[in-house]
Amino acid sequence: MSLNIALGQQNFLVGDIEANVNQIQQATAQAIQLNADLIIFPELTLTGYPVEDLLLRPDFIAAANNAIYNLATIFPEIAIVIGYPEIVGDKLYNSAAVLHQGAIIANYRKQALPNYGVFDEQRYFTAGNQACVFELHDALIGLSICEDVWQPELVAQTQQAGATILLTLNASPFERGKQQQREAQISNQAKTSQIPIVYVNQIGGQDELVFDGGSFVANKDAEIVFRAPVFQTDLSVVNFIDNQPQVTTCTPIVNPIAGIYSALVLGIKDYVTKNNFNGAILGLSGGIDSALVLVLAVDALGADQVEAVLMPSCYTQDMSNEDAELEAQALGVKTYTIPIASAVTAFENLLAPIFVETNNDATEENIQARCRGLLLMALSNKFGRMVLTTGNKSEMSVGYATLYGDMAGGFAPLKDVPKLLVYALAKYRNTLSVVIPARVISRPPSAELAPEQIDTDSLPAYEQLDPILERYIELDQSKTTIIAAGFAIAEVERAISLVDKNEYKRRQAPTGIKITAKAFGRERRYPITSGYDGLKEI
Amino acid sequence: MSLNIALGQQNFLVGDIEANVNQIQQATAQAIQLNADLIIFPELTLTGYPVEDLLLRPDFIAAANNAIYNLATIFPEIAIVIGYPEIVGDKLYNSAAVLHQGAIIANYRKQALPNYGVFDEQRYFTAGNQACVFELHDALIGLSICEDVWQPELVAQTQQAGATILLTLNASPFERGKQQQREAQISNQAKTSQIPIVYVNQIGGQDELVFDGGSFVANKDAEIVFRAPVFQTDLSVVNFIDNQPQVTTCTPIVNPIAGIYSALVLGIKDYVTKNNFNGAILGLSGGIDSALVLVLAVDALGADQVEAVLMPSCYTQDMSNEDAELEAQALGVKTYTIPIASAVTAFENLLAPIFVETNNDATEENIQARCRGLLLMALSNKFGRMVLTTGNKSEMSVGYATLYGDMAGGFAPLKDVPKLLVYALAKYRNTLSVVIPARVISRPPSAELAPEQIDTDSLPAYEQLDPILERYIELDQSKTTIIAAGFAIAEVERAISLVDKNEYKRRQAPTGIKITAKAFGRERRYPITSGYDGLKEI
Repeated sequence: MSLNIALGQQNFLVGDIEANVNQIQQATAQAIQLNADLIIFPELTLTGYPVEDLLLRPDFIAAANNAIYNLATIFPEIAIVIGYPEIVGDKLYNSAAVLHQGAIIANYRKQALPNYGVFDEQRYFTAGNQACVFELHDALIGLSICEDVWQPELVAQTQQAGATILLTLNASPFERGKQQQREAQISNQAKTSQIPIVYVNQIGGQDELVFDGGSFVANKDAEIVFRAPVFQTDLSVVNFIDNQPQVTTCTPIVNPIAGIYSALVLGIKDYVTKNNFNGAILGLSGGIDSALVLVLAVDALGADQVEAVLMPSCYTQDMSNEDAELEAQALGVKTYTIPIASAVTAFENLLAPIFVETNNDATEENIQARCRGLLLMALSNKFGRMVLTTGNKSEMSVGYATLYGDMAGGFAPLKDVPKLLVYALAKYRNTLSVVIPARVISRPPSAELAPEQIDTDSLPAYEQLDPILERYIELDQSKTTIIAAGFAIAEVERAISLVDKNEYKRRQAPTGIKITAKAFGRERRYPITSGYDGLKEI
Repeated sequence: MSLNIALGQQNFLVGDIEANVNQIQQATAQAIQLNADLIIFPELTLTGYPVEDLLLRPDFIAAANNAIYNLATIFPEIAIVIGYPEIVGDKLYNSAAVLHQGAIIANYRKQALPNYGVFDEQRYFTAGNQACVFELHDALIGLSICEDVWQPELVAQTQQAGATILLTLNASPFERGKQQQREAQISNQAKTSQIPIVYVNQIGGQDELVFDGGSFVANKDAEIVFRAPVFQTDLSVVNFIDNQPQVTTCTPIVNPIAGIYSALVLGIKDYVTKNNFNGAILGLSGGIDSALVLVLAVDALGADQVEAVLMPSCYTQDMSNEDAELEAQALGVKTYTIPIASAVTAFENLLAPIFVETNNDATEENIQARCRGLLLMALSNKFGRMVLTTGNKSEMSVGYATLYGDMAGGFAPLKDVPKLLVYALAKYRNTLSVVIPARVISRPPSAELAPEQIDTDSLPAYEQLDPILERYIELDQSKTTIIAAGFAIAEVERAISLVDKNEYKRRQAPTGIKITAKAFGRERRYPITSGYDGLKEI
């Protein structure tokens, strides 16, 4: 028995059923050219993933269900395995249908509905409760959707139903080290059940998630015999002889920093283009964060689609302007220079009679940041480029950012990238071609909103801060646990206190790209109004 | 048999277990004074509700579980029914414990975990699977938590377990007409099961939710024999003789507009004070929206805790300034007047070289709105008052608002209030005392960002727009359905198109108070990046 299975690692647009159907048809036609007997697509192929509350719209669900019936008749010669939101009475299932010879020959309903982290599937779906195995060219093929294949009992259920090959449709978002986790888990399931597993993942950016692809096939000895490239669409065919996958191309796993860099590039590209913006624009300060965002944007969109704005004040050092210009030149990016003094002065004059008996404080720093935000938004409004903000996760965590100032923009590429990782990514990118001036990497970070200001005036050094934040935010560790791990009490307390009281800023921040195990946004959902105090020992 | 049951309709602070324990102790001491044999508190008493991802913190969960054990010993003479997140191994339950004579004499685990609308309980909790009935002074008392009591089979389960009285702990957020729904549903359950039901709800604002209280007791004839007041804390005792509740005070249900008004007042009060802000500040334009927010804020916080800022431009009509001052005087609120021309000019000059070959468009309007936002935020930063934004739900729906401009602020009281309801609320408030000048209510609404601008230049008349928006947003109706209901095609298409493309603005909006059946925020969760097009017929 020989069977060719095509893995349709595609980039769908959430909500656009018509465009997704077109893409399915193109990929299927290509798979037929490649002599595939079957093509499998990612989870919820027709609608994209995650669809969120569009799933509550009857018109949308009806359209998706109609589309699946229409598709069945177009390519009778190949089996198409496709994900869709299946409506049955008043119940919605996260389903996979097998279309063949003009009919739906099998239909599977996802059983394990994740409702943690970034996932809310129990908000929408009813769980299925049985295995699905269908026959194609003498093979008995079982179906599984994403979370299902992480559950040993569900893989066993499909095996007991007779499957000799297991296909799984996935929408598994990128995070650091995720591909290794997937392969370890799924290849182990293949070995335990003695069934090869075909794992297809989608690619593409969708708001704060980036799907990295990396579709693969694990044989029953837990070996990866095929791996698709990450962060790009792919259509590959794996040949099965007597139910066993034959070894084919295995794209190597990229190193962790390169993987994160690619995730950020794809996240920016898809957010800007899928939202139909005319490129991107950002404030370029001469600091490391905006330096990294600029090169990411150029790598995502092309130099001609990106503009940088220098907005110096009296606190901006010459080297900041010089380094900003140097990088823009190295990348071939157009710059504007708009000194903000006159706007800042206008506000200071307007407020002077009211502020007459007050001292300078963060208010005056925020005015500067907000004048910059206003200028960037004006350029964005006028020319249609999306403003990219440049703040990183360390700043978002402790609130070291100005709402409506440097936080103003459509997308925050570094929102989940801690400061130390910003440096690592900048250094990595310079190994490909030197674009970020060395001084940007070596100088102490500064917001340049007050005379001779540096970040460590207000914050612990990032070498201390970042691991404290990781423990408190990503690992939910208590103050006591973090201190017991060897961090200084004062720095731990300062960091925790700042994290606790800045939820309100994060709630109004633009969306950004998840790359860690717990990103702000749909993954970490904290109340703003909260008496929780991480400093208190109860 | 005589039994006195106290209903502890309290206002807890999410996350502050220590403060909540204190409040529980005070209310319990008071209930003992009132000769209560039992006091019942709302759902998740110890932690407040909704706790969101604080429930994922092991330190927080441990503190809540320790607190329940400590509480058991303090008041041995009364039974205390209290909600808490119960940890058992690696499972978390939404539980209610009965503390009596120094011990936990009964414990119930919520069975129906809502995971729709504003609720995400399946993200955190495992469902219980059995009834809980305990004996107190010869009564057999069953327990139930919120969603449970809406399920006939769960009420029947408790009845079959022998309960002769059913207590239910609730955290049921306010929305239009909700109290009537609750009473109809729960009194019907009481009648069907022939068991009186004691329904205790919390009160208070928590981010976008307002809990309205309205705790009540339904007898087995489906009569409401007790009703607590809404929007305020209450501790009342209902006497049961031979398991039947005796008729006592029934606070009348308030009329719908008055109820919404009270919800907005409590929402503002709790958001500002629970977040420790030093009062509120807002831009007062002379239009209806800011006029309503001002009086709401004064009713919530007191006139001395509220300031209003007039920020006229060349497009501001004299009547706008006059009416703004009139209202502020009527309410005794301090005003500042800051004309924005000089700041706007500073930006126009800075941008002139870049904008030289462009035409005026929304960019210039946004600059004005953003100068105002910047001024308000500067005053807020300097003096610690929270900026209240003044946009309404109609504007939020269609994106008729400027990000970082009039959308800049900590809280958006009218975010879920459609424009026509804004008028109704203003008129209602003027029936209590005339504070909003008649001209503010009668003149056509205008953003005053361009010469002689009125809202209907850009939008359908609100008499058309609001019902279209309600159908599209709250009821998830399709374009076809809405047109079939008699609305003009062009207006329906314009409204839908604007709603679809403005999700990005809503995502960065401040939080506001839910009063309808579907509020933006945690209740309506749409993707920003989306190819869904409500205009398309598929």
